[in-house]
Amino acid sequence: MIRQTRHEMLTEIKTRFANRALTDQEVPQEVLEALVEAASHAPSCFNEQPWRFLIATGERRERLLATLTEQNQEWAGRAPVLVLTLSKKTFTQGGRDNYWHMSDAGCATGFFMLEAERRGLTAHPMAGFSRKQAREAFQIPEEYDIVHVMAVGWPGDLHLLSEKNQARNHPKSRKPIEELLL
Amino acid sequence: MIRQTRHEMLTEIKTRFANRALTDQEVPQEVLEALVEAASHAPSCFNEQPWRFLIATGERRERLLATLTEQNQEWAGRAPVLVLTLSKKTFTQGGRDNYWHMSDAGCATGFFMLEAERRGLTAHPMAGFSRKQAREAFQIPEEYDIVHVMAVGWPGDLHLLSEKNQARNHPKSRKPIEELLL
Repeated sequence: MIRQTRHEMLTEIKTRFANRALTDQEVPQEVLEALVEAASHAPSCFNEQPWRFLIATGERRERLLATLTEQNQEWAGRAPVLVLTLSKKTFTQGGRDNYWHMSDAGCATGFFMLEAERRGLTAHPMAGFSRKQAREAFQIPEEYDIVHVMAVGWPGDLHLLSEKNQARNHPKSRKPIEELLL
Repeated sequence: MIRQTRHEMLTEIKTRFANRALTDQEVPQEVLEALVEAASHAPSCFNEQPWRFLIATGERRERLLATLTEQNQEWAGRAPVLVLTLSKKTFTQGGRDNYWHMSDAGCATGFFMLEAERRGLTAHPMAGFSRKQAREAFQIPEEYDIVHVMAVGWPGDLHLLSEKNQARNHPKSRKPIEELLL
């Protein structure tokens, strides 16, 4: 199912959605690095590049998976890769608080997701996890805020999902443009 | 000048950079709406869609321009459109603080910028402005955080810029991928 949009737009924006039907097929290291590189070309205040990525496969994937809500574990447990995204709170030069670190990190994860989409992969961001547990599990220093966890994998058959998840595995609707304009 | 990247990636990610050489040629309303629509398809926590866009043309453009630093006014003064991006701090349902509002809004502005790029436009985000003045100038309610101002316009000749700006009007370098991985 592809989004119906009023205007033409980037294919990857149209086709991307929070797909839960992922297979357990491995994602090559080279591809994961390409996604991080795509993210790295996002703009940031003073070119600070506050974004960081903890790519969790193998044992680290198990550890990160355990921090997700039960509902997310159910489907994201199949994803071969989980990514913990982080954002550095202060400017490296001078050490002042960086007001833009979260919005810049969000932009970078957007680039990550769209490059994943271009490669036929899904990168599905989740807020449903314990930031506290994730911080402890990987001893994340206080200088980084935790952004989210992304499940990364290859889209698969809808029947991988429970009936409940099958029913909601489609692009969600959006506010009309008019409601976004001030 | 196009970024040299280690891996193949989305054309719009490669070609986008913080271009200052914009012409004063008008951007049709329809195109601006298409950029907002592209942004609207970003993912967000609980599908809250916290992003808002104040599209400033005409008199509103003058008012927003006045909030920029002198350095930014010098080149952004030619852009036919300035966009003030905002982010709603709380969840509409329940009213609790939305930890993800800034990262979600940042992701949406990333989609906005890449769709601009696909259409041959530049959308250049700036942190160099007074958030206080911008809030006052447009009476932005406290429930919204101000994210940034984007200059939106058509790329033009380098000679539109001062010598100083000509010299720095190219993609900036990025940290090697290794430094972004935890």
